[in-house]
Amino acid sequence: MDEKKLAIIATKGSLDWAYPPFILASTAAALGYDTQIFFTFYGLELLKKKLNLQVTSLGNPAMPMPMPIPVILQTMPGMQAMMSSMMKKTMKKKGVASIDELRELCLEAEVKMVACQMTVDLFEFDTSDFIEGIEYGGAATFFEFAGESDVCLYI
Amino acid sequence: MDEKKLAIIATKGSLDWAYPPFILASTAAALGYDTQIFFTFYGLELLKKKLNLQVTSLGNPAMPMPMPIPVILQTMPGMQAMMSSMMKKTMKKKGVASIDELRELCLEAEVKMVACQMTVDLFEFDTSDFIEGIEYGGAATFFEFAGESDVCLYI
Amino acid sequence: MDEKKLAIIATKGSLDWAYPPFILASTAAALGYDTQIFFTFYGLELLKKKLNLQVTSLGNPAMPMPMPIPVILQTMPGMQAMMSSMMKKTMKKKGVASIDELRELCLEAEVKMVACQMTVDLFEFDTSDFIEGIEYGGAATFFEFAGESDVCLYI
Repeated sequence: MDEKKLAIIATKGSLDWAYPPFILASTAAALGYDTQIFFTFYGLELLKKKLNLQVTSLGNPAMPMPMPIPVILQTMPGMQAMMSSMMKKTMKKKGVASIDELRELCLEAEVKMVACQMTVDLFEFDTSDFIEGIEYGGAATFFEFAGESDVCLYI
Repeated sequence: MDEKKLAIIATKGSLDWAYPPFILASTAAALGYDTQIFFTFYGLELLKKKLNLQVTSLGNPAMPMPMPIPVILQTMPGMQAMMSSMMKKTMKKKGVASIDELRELCLEAEVKMVACQMTVDLFEFDTSDFIEGIEYGGAATFFEFAGESDVCLYI
Repeated sequence: MDEKKLAIIATKGSLDWAYPPFILASTAAALGYDTQIFFTFYGLELLKKKLNLQVTSLGNPAMPMPMPIPVILQTMPGMQAMMSSMMKKTMKKKGVASIDELRELCLEAEVKMVACQMTVDLFEFDTSDFIEGIEYGGAATFFEFAGESDVCLYI
């Protein structure tokens, strides 16, 4: 039987939504899947050498909080940094690998990472800010792989 | 021909995004699909016995509103509760089943529901808060089903 | 070999998330894919003749900004309109087609567009506000196509 294939389109760049692509990709790779992630739009943030990912409860009423905080207070200066710091601490305390570590794990497991060239141009990202070992391409290139995939996820 | 398979990863826990996994799963089950939903991250909220799902227009400029409300006012105390209450009333008036009902419908149609064990541990959810009839597992377990699915959706 | 099939469920109605369904669908169509988009929930905004799509950085800490703006200021009157206008200008300057143009491109490439009848009824949309050349249907109709698709994306 042929190797299974997992294709992921990673479009989000917040701290919380950085986990799913890397967790799913590393899990699939460990299961023997040939895995590719196409990073586009805000997802390109996940490819930066120096990650500075933030999370916010704004617009996400389902985010678990240690105590209820009025929405207006969630917009106050320092709140986003505090929530991001808390999420990182919780992940660490619970033994969940950091985004850096999960990303490294994916690269070691030969997950192919492709940065969307159009978005790089659009947001004027400096590719020297991105990690080594990635490729650059467009949606058409990605479809070559996705069209043959067993599972394709838009995250 | 084999039975078709639908795999869903439900990651959101707001009132609006609670509908798609249950509507799609119950529809597919009615069409004869073997269906599984893997609840992870904020999606675990959808498995609580006592649902307390909220919706907000913050961060979602496309949410239809009876009248335009300045963003700053949308952050005011009581606004989120009001929007959640309004959405529930509209759904009811229009004959759309509630999340409780849709979830029950899915269970009756033998949609398999799996709670992500890692997220349960991470957010320290009390599994006695969750409904009966669900299973617990990890991403690897889910791939066993997803890898054979005809349609796999990350919601 | 049979023609490849791409199925997209478009659920978001903001300016930024309007690009992915139309870019992916037009790319796939150009590659010879038989392509369908099912517009549901906020995604129905993308079918309006007169598009008025907005974007906001609220709830999306990963949105690139020309300079850091405190979250509380992002809630101020006029900010959303300014961010939407800026994104449109950037897209234009960089040679990315507008949503109108991308949508037209999809229609010319015979991408089939289906509006979710349930959502139309729910939000009391006036179908005369929608563009010509689309169809109306439910999730069950969509599964007929999605169940045979090679790639199915929930956006």
